Amino acid sequence: MKILTGVQPSGKLHLGNYFSAIRKILHYQNKAELMLFIANLHALTTFSSKENLKENTISAALDLLALGVDPDKTIFWIQSDVPEVTELTWYLSQSITVSQLQLAHSFKDKVAKGFVPGAGLFTYPVLMASDILLYSADKVPVGKDQKQHLEFARDIAERFNSNFGETLTVPEPDIDENTAAIPGVDGAKMSKSYKNTIDLFGTEKEIKKAIMSIVSDSKEISEPKDPDTSIIFQIHSLFLNEEEKQILKTRYTSGGVGYGDLKKSLLDQVMTHFEPFRKKREELSNDLSYVNEILAKGKTKASSIARKKIEEVRKALGIYPF
Amino acid sequence: MKILTGVQPSGKLHLGNYFSAIRKILHYQNKAELMLFIANLHALTTFSSKENLKENTISAALDLLALGVDPDKTIFWIQSDVPEVTELTWYLSQSITVSQLQLAHSFKDKVAKGFVPGAGLFTYPVLMASDILLYSADKVPVGKDQKQHLEFARDIAERFNSNFGETLTVPEPDIDENTAAIPGVDGAKMSKSYKNTIDLFGTEKEIKKAIMSIVSDSKEISEPKDPDTSIIFQIHSLFLNEEEKQILKTRYTSGGVGYGDLKKSLLDQVMTHFEPFRKKREELSNDLSYVNEILAKGKTKASSIARKKIEEVRKALGIYPF
Repeated sequence: MKILTGVQPSGKLHLGNYFSAIRKILHYQNKAELMLFIANLHALTTFSSKENLKENTISAALDLLALGVDPDKTIFWIQSDVPEVTELTWYLSQSITVSQLQLAHSFKDKVAKGFVPGAGLFTYPVLMASDILLYSADKVPVGKDQKQHLEFARDIAERFNSNFGETLTVPEPDIDENTAAIPGVDGAKMSKSYKNTIDLFGTEKEIKKAIMSIVSDSKEISEPKDPDTSIIFQIHSLFLNEEEKQILKTRYTSGGVGYGDLKKSLLDQVMTHFEPFRKKREELSNDLSYVNEILAKGKTKASSIARKKIEEVRKALGIYPF
Repeated sequence: MKILTGVQPSGKLHLGNYFSAIRKILHYQNKAELMLFIANLHALTTFSSKENLKENTISAALDLLALGVDPDKTIFWIQSDVPEVTELTWYLSQSITVSQLQLAHSFKDKVAKGFVPGAGLFTYPVLMASDILLYSADKVPVGKDQKQHLEFARDIAERFNSNFGETLTVPEPDIDENTAAIPGVDGAKMSKSYKNTIDLFGTEKEIKKAIMSIVSDSKEISEPKDPDTSIIFQIHSLFLNEEEKQILKTRYTSGGVGYGDLKKSLLDQVMTHFEPFRKKREELSNDLSYVNEILAKGKTKASSIARKKIEEVRKALGIYPF
């Protein structure tokens, strides 16, 4: 079972990324053949500056390695290191219609928000299909917002196979319906674009500032608090097992503990939980040549799979050299 | 001065291709740095079968070499041999909007004809821009139908340069306004899609059949004929200098020569003119390994230019590795 997933290098990771996506990715590492890449080519559709893209790309690599991606178990590479993905994108472009792409939610949403869409944003789903089909992924973990893109990849693979002969693996989605959205400090879904995040690898000062800004009601210290409606509790409980949750609940409901203290406990939890990852990240960032070596090995492995598939696709289409 | 042009491998060459495009290309060979490629990736947007694409690709190589492309003077390669062109296509996709592409005449025409457009047909102009910009062409010969595509390439280059710093050469169009359309056997513009062609490398029987089917009026042998309205004369005169044209004109206007004989003269002219090319093509087609060697050398030269440009573009965008 080959599982593939890409992570956009979009800046600092936050608790929402960690609990909704990254933990799940890491979970697969020991259970399947995992292929994980940093989607820097996709990031061009929302480009801000080359300095940003560089920083975010290397930062994403550091984050993932620090959090536990094991390059001996997982093929881990940077998307641009295997440019065959853009070649396959062109071949696949013939197997999806303009009308289909016009239906993409992500495209329509951005247009509705007043974004002037570039051709890249429009053909983004074809590049994404290419990511998946180039490596013959069996399964792709997708959030709700990516479900349709996976459907496109399946459609493209099916159409290509029916037109040119069985060449591409039709991927299955791996949709986790149970995942509730992780709340941000304002209670809305935690998201960079809402500026309501708690960053994983921020300084203690930054993390403290974010946690202290979590919205709460105005109950006095002495009053009992309602954990079910408390954002502080919801975030805190992500770190806890059932037993620990019950103990924390009691601190909320028994009264006598103020929100300031409850936030302080959450801060301790966050700092303690990520301490080893933070240390690992620090080490890695002081040894970038080692990180680049890891990425180069990933490139070699991913390239060899990619080249084989490109050869098959070229044969199916009659591309020179024969 | 670097001049770049691509030829689609769309099947048998005809007199229209030769007199409107190929002769002009060959003319540049001794006057500039000519880069000439067979556009097999573009041909996918109107794909019929892999067997066809293979046959047409190699056939186009044989045609061009037989007609005089000199691989010592011209960089001559097959588009798919330098897949960097697809990578650049992705980078350039960010520098053209969906609305611009929707205005492409070639796209609108195909849609108007009831063609269900694939994403490839829609993004075709971006691949074409990539062909041009990857090799830093200074000048691109374009027919009227390609004028807009060259405008797109210029727009893309300008926008890229203004967003990411001077990286791409803005190409100039080389529009030959004087070229009158070459008439086919029915008098309409000679074109494969009108089935009115006289093929360059057909058998004598095929060429004879085509020439004998040229439409004429029903003047008797004895009557004078009007060269200015005769399709036979128009095609024949393509081969002649001014003096020869005058002599032929006299044969038309003096009477006593039937259309059958005038067609016979045209047939002789066509067969004689292309005899050396036909022989060369025959030789080449019996030595495909030599042809592949030529193409491999062209690939090497084109690749080295392409890789350099891709490196520059990657640097401008902040693509890993840095």
